[in-house]
Amino acid sequence: MSVTVTTARERMELAKTASREIGLLSDERKRDVLRSLADSIVARTDRIVAENAEDLSRGRANGLSDGLQDRLRLDAPRVAALASAVRDVAELPDPVGRVLDERVIGGGVRLTKVSVPFGVVGSIYEARPNVTVDIAALALRSGNAVVLRGGTAAERTNAALVGAMRDALRAQDVDPEAIQTLDDLGRDGARDLMQARGLVDVLVPRGSAQLIETVVTQSQVPVIETGAGVVHIVVDASAREDWAREIIVNAKVQRPSVCNAVETILVHRDAADRLVPVIVADLQEQGVTVHGDAGVAARATDVVPATDADWAQEYLSLDVAMRIVDDIDDAIAHIRTFSTQHTEAIITEDEGSAERFLAEVDAAVVVVNASTRFTDGGEFGFGAEVGISTQKLHARGPMGLPELTSVKWLARGAGHVRA
Amino acid sequence: MSVTVTTARERMELAKTASREIGLLSDERKRDVLRSLADSIVARTDRIVAENAEDLSRGRANGLSDGLQDRLRLDAPRVAALASAVRDVAELPDPVGRVLDERVIGGGVRLTKVSVPFGVVGSIYEARPNVTVDIAALALRSGNAVVLRGGTAAERTNAALVGAMRDALRAQDVDPEAIQTLDDLGRDGARDLMQARGLVDVLVPRGSAQLIETVVTQSQVPVIETGAGVVHIVVDASAREDWAREIIVNAKVQRPSVCNAVETILVHRDAADRLVPVIVADLQEQGVTVHGDAGVAARATDVVPATDADWAQEYLSLDVAMRIVDDIDDAIAHIRTFSTQHTEAIITEDEGSAERFLAEVDAAVVVVNASTRFTDGGEFGFGAEVGISTQKLHARGPMGLPELTSVKWLARGAGHVRA
Repeated sequence: MSVTVTTARERMELAKTASREIGLLSDERKRDVLRSLADSIVARTDRIVAENAEDLSRGRANGLSDGLQDRLRLDAPRVAALASAVRDVAELPDPVGRVLDERVIGGGVRLTKVSVPFGVVGSIYEARPNVTVDIAALALRSGNAVVLRGGTAAERTNAALVGAMRDALRAQDVDPEAIQTLDDLGRDGARDLMQARGLVDVLVPRGSAQLIETVVTQSQVPVIETGAGVVHIVVDASAREDWAREIIVNAKVQRPSVCNAVETILVHRDAADRLVPVIVADLQEQGVTVHGDAGVAARATDVVPATDADWAQEYLSLDVAMRIVDDIDDAIAHIRTFSTQHTEAIITEDEGSAERFLAEVDAAVVVVNASTRFTDGGEFGFGAEVGISTQKLHARGPMGLPELTSVKWLARGAGHVRA
Repeated sequence: MSVTVTTARERMELAKTASREIGLLSDERKRDVLRSLADSIVARTDRIVAENAEDLSRGRANGLSDGLQDRLRLDAPRVAALASAVRDVAELPDPVGRVLDERVIGGGVRLTKVSVPFGVVGSIYEARPNVTVDIAALALRSGNAVVLRGGTAAERTNAALVGAMRDALRAQDVDPEAIQTLDDLGRDGARDLMQARGLVDVLVPRGSAQLIETVVTQSQVPVIETGAGVVHIVVDASAREDWAREIIVNAKVQRPSVCNAVETILVHRDAADRLVPVIVADLQEQGVTVHGDAGVAARATDVVPATDADWAQEYLSLDVAMRIVDDIDDAIAHIRTFSTQHTEAIITEDEGSAERFLAEVDAAVVVVNASTRFTDGGEFGFGAEVGISTQKLHARGPMGLPELTSVKWLARGAGHVRA
């Protein structure tokens, strides 16, 4: 259970060595490892909850906010939920060994492109113990070793969780060094992880926009950016009232704290008189504060005047910004300026507007006449979600297990040489 | 033809704006643009060759080596060859708009994953004018704008080529700002390009290992690493003599200056007496200098003693390192230490050794009983080659046009909300 005092580099080298064994495990062996991980976490519930209580007590003494304390808190039901999520990942199809391309070249060399594990997956995240278990399970299921660097406020909780998971690897006769934590090394751990090119194959930051920005700008290891969502819904001149009202309430109210919730509504001026009053009333009835421009304020009551800062705001709360736009061009220009390229939607009955929006808006997911809340690995049918990529390299949008793999070309010849 | 004196950032912003137009061009329009590019380059041959002569003259005065002068030199046939390569790219299938996944979610939302251009592709490379034209053509064919930063020794040549290509865009009524060069901005241009996150979507360095290392470690823009090849061939105990000899000569001698040429040969000790003498003799007959360990030297004449540096060497010349290994494990361990994960090969009649090698060796391309020279976009049937990726994110191995695209999820509903 104790973490040997070694350097970050030594631990990452151990992870790299262990990754070779993990990468060759069969589908069934990986499922067994994950089930064992879940069992081990449940069996150590008391210890995990006790260590978590120590983190919470330290957090309170250091003035950790109630919200962050709640994210950090583990009790027996939450520990059981963590283990249950691991069992769900165990049931997903193996992303390794898929044949992605086959061809015969050079007069008889058989070429096969197969999916292979990355090797070592790193993650830098905040004081959310569920990420510790999630990322470890997803990485192992896809044949990777994992190096974790969570928030120091969760250090003891994470150590207990990592200890439980490493015990499970030992019990399965798998190298426990496949799971590493750098939490005890403070900022040096994060820095060393970001510089570990050649040891760590990909780094997945999880957390606030600021944390992700730091990792993206400082890391020499390739990063998969799972970013913030300044998500827009455009209400076109032709938008159906019932669709507009239902989609906007769903997109804003169902779960305001997540990245696929809508943050800005852009209403075509030809629909403003018809739809602004009812949309604002619907939202206010659900407890939403509407930050509107003059055109919105003129058509509804209790509208908070929007400032320039509102257009760039990811509220993650029961707040929404709202603006009248001249036309589709104006809406697309606004989105180009403020979008984080996560999810953008339009509500329209006009096929031309819909297709223009789909073609011209640059985002991971572009939606016509549906809620932005569908941008989610579970909803997309991936079974689990590694995160939602807002970058264009390697993966874009909701990522499943296949996004934690790379590829390898296998060439089988019989003495073939190049002409 | 003249480049307005603007900052790198201004030019990249112009490229970003132009990328929206380029990204929406039809397949046929993009073909026309490329054909026009080729015509424009040919029509301006005299000017290009004259500007190139100025670069060469400056290069000679600055002590540019004969080899680098040759890489820089353009005469009329070489200009024609550049244009011809552009015409070949025009004939390749459009990589944009491919449907990569389709599913229905949420009780009726139609989800389509399509390939889309990255937006703006950047490239940092050395004084090779052919790269200027290659990268521009590949980027435009895949719907991207391009920002070029070539070696300053080719500044006037590149300006003439970029001018010719921008004229072609104008003639096709396409925004000429889709092709930008930063050559006149010196080191600042390269630095600004590497920091242009949000403006440039992906950066492809081309050139020496040192240039690539600099870009990979300093860039905040996501990089596709096209790396060096310290390529190994393992001669197993069971290797057929004819295959071993033909493959090794082909892999070393056919084109020693390229990254898929073999640099180190590892011979199983049980095959050493049988094969080392003939392999060394074959290579020496082709003018190759063999840098061998004691086991190799004991079995052949004129072997230069290998030092530790030889095992890490990408000679790119008629030199090869050669070592006796105890077994497959020893060979794989050597490869793990020195491989650049480009291409690794084994020559063996033992199915078990072949499959172990394919599974355990971590490289973009792993080869059994064929030449390492097959690692090439043309040989793989891609028609053109963007480079050979030695990283694991996004693309691995030879890259074709599809590797210059990202994806976008399109969701089409009819008032659907998330339950």
